[in-house]
Amino acid sequence: MELPADGIERRLDTWPVARLATLGPGGAPQQVPIVFARHAGVLWSPIDAKPKAAGELGRVRNVRREPRVSLLLDHYDPDWTRLWWIRLDARAEVVEAGADPALDPVVRALRAKYPQYADTPLFRDPPLLLRFEILSVQSWVASEDDPNLLG
Amino acid sequence: MELPADGIERRLDTWPVARLATLGPGGAPQQVPIVFARHAGVLWSPIDAKPKAAGELGRVRNVRREPRVSLLLDHYDPDWTRLWWIRLDARAEVVEAGADPALDPVVRALRAKYPQYADTPLFRDPPLLLRFEILSVQSWVASEDDPNLLG
Repeated sequence: MELPADGIERRLDTWPVARLATLGPGGAPQQVPIVFARHAGVLWSPIDAKPKAAGELGRVRNVRREPRVSLLLDHYDPDWTRLWWIRLDARAEVVEAGADPALDPVVRALRAKYPQYADTPLFRDPPLLLRFEILSVQSWVASEDDPNLLG
Repeated sequence: MELPADGIERRLDTWPVARLATLGPGGAPQQVPIVFARHAGVLWSPIDAKPKAAGELGRVRNVRREPRVSLLLDHYDPDWTRLWWIRLDARAEVVEAGADPALDPVVRALRAKYPQYADTPLFRDPPLLLRFEILSVQSWVASEDDPNLLG
């Protein structure tokens, strides 16, 4: 069955990780886990300073070439009555996060959601964000959603 | 940095969940979490009886159309020094699991890995498995891998 609308909203605001699928140069899908925050209905993920390959990342090159991506939020649990997932079709864009004050609320949302950015720089050089415009949402939950339960 | 080879092998044998990305009918990626077991170097995922949409699933239709898929195993942790992921490029195939005794070890591997199949039927009708031949493996770990640590 589907998750209730408020259960979807809550997870989009608070769930710490999503899996991003982009299309690679040969047209096959590629995946990577990402952190993200929601601001004004849009999801944002920074290219942060967690250790990564040098140079422009595959996810950035892929999004520049093909903006159609998938985002998956889900919970695995050995108790299979507690499984759920939320699948987003999204249009992705690479955004320079230089000196645009319009992005300040996005940066604040990311820092508020992830206290880890007190230690890990939020950006590399150049500062980049992936912006995800949500085009459609599908969800599934194994059993009745407990509104107090996020796991 | 990369995970050590034994850390990859161990996770492919024991990690309970992967995220599968296929290509949808319009060519955009689609994702879903799956359970799987490894047998003889190949990953197998049953179309089991956890509650699902009726009829043939999107993942099955997608794989029949386009066998190039991505599988992601990863661990999210609020302690970002404990993050890791394993990304597999794979060739997927839909396999009828009817009466082929060659699939008995696969079924045993799935039942051994997931005691949940004592309660949840392993198959629906018709009995189908997704078979994933691993074409390439990439991995990333945030810091030195503790061989005793799977999380």
